[in-house]
Amino acid sequence: MTTKRIEIVQDILNVNDQIAEETNALLHSKHIFSLNIMASPGAGKTSLILKTLQALPPDMRAAVLEGDTAPVTIDAEKVHGIGVPAIQINTGGDCHLNANLVKKGIQALDLDNLDFIIVENVGNLICPAAWKLGTDMNMVIASIPEGDDKPYKYPNIYRGIQALVLNKIDLKPYVDFNVPYFKEGITALNPNVEFFEVSSKTGEGIPAWAEWLRKKIESVA
Amino acid sequence: MTTKRIEIVQDILNVNDQIAEETNALLHSKHIFSLNIMASPGAGKTSLILKTLQALPPDMRAAVLEGDTAPVTIDAEKVHGIGVPAIQINTGGDCHLNANLVKKGIQALDLDNLDFIIVENVGNLICPAAWKLGTDMNMVIASIPEGDDKPYKYPNIYRGIQALVLNKIDLKPYVDFNVPYFKEGITALNPNVEFFEVSSKTGEGIPAWAEWLRKKIESVA
Repeated sequence: MTTKRIEIVQDILNVNDQIAEETNALLHSKHIFSLNIMASPGAGKTSLILKTLQALPPDMRAAVLEGDTAPVTIDAEKVHGIGVPAIQINTGGDCHLNANLVKKGIQALDLDNLDFIIVENVGNLICPAAWKLGTDMNMVIASIPEGDDKPYKYPNIYRGIQALVLNKIDLKPYVDFNVPYFKEGITALNPNVEFFEVSSKTGEGIPAWAEWLRKKIESVA
Repeated sequence: MTTKRIEIVQDILNVNDQIAEETNALLHSKHIFSLNIMASPGAGKTSLILKTLQALPPDMRAAVLEGDTAPVTIDAEKVHGIGVPAIQINTGGDCHLNANLVKKGIQALDLDNLDFIIVENVGNLICPAAWKLGTDMNMVIASIPEGDDKPYKYPNIYRGIQALVLNKIDLKPYVDFNVPYFKEGITALNPNVEFFEVSSKTGEGIPAWAEWLRKKIESVA
């Protein structure tokens, strides 16, 4: 029975990867850059998305797919609130987005009038790591109060990312967090990760992160 | 194929629940109280466990099962450091503990010389909710910097708990966190949850929480 179950899971993953490739090809044909944001619950994904969208040039047209495990529109409403289209994707309790859910979300967007799609994954440092969505880039948002040992405890999520944004640096004076130890943990898993330190609350570090991202977006335009 | 997969998952859950019942009966026959602690990565599970163990009466004999997704012993070593037996359980990448892993962990303990077992689940607000471990009590540790909207976004984890410890209250001055909104979200899902506000860093609130827990432990002695 165990063997049978493994076979089925592999089938599903293969279908997932195929859909992911189709999504990526579709978005490239429309010159749209796409970004999958993964993080713990409460690392500040939505806040960073809002700050990033506001820091990008105003003629850069974005949309956000909001992954949630429950039918809540808290995050999607915040994105709508700054005038950016947002689609809420409810996983129905599942602990991660998959390529098929993202495909359905993208079908609800006007792709001819977009430069950039952000996918906000479900808050989880484990499950999203295994599922390709068809995005150009994966990133993790970490945060100071989560602690500096996360790369050692949840290694898989850091292996497939191109960028790491360390958020809530305004809390550094109040929390023990060893930045070099944290970075070493990630570099050991994935030496090519680009690091940014930001505070969505104070805005510190947002311009440098947004400028780097702007160049990525323009690279597929 | 989809139907087949659901059947298999149900089989596994039934086996899991049966093992959980056996574990609970075994622990009760030894007059051991057991507690399953669930939380986001970085909410402060291990720190709270250490503070709690130090606040309980010294003649209360405890052990800790440390659930991790990777073969890291960071948390188990911290528990050992205060003279408490700790067993590290590596889920091999899985996003939650299950009853069989906990059963194996318990087999490594000297049950005739224990009053209390803490199970530290994998850091995750979604997957652990669905898996009974055989413990007497489930709880969630939340933390101020995670934000007050978590009960609305990750509802299932709060449905089966008896206690919620809101940690890192020393960070209240620096973070927007609406405690009544947070509590209302949980009470709407589960009206009988006992709330505690603590700081593992300053020790605030730990005595009240430890005293409540002491009575629970003594209730099975």
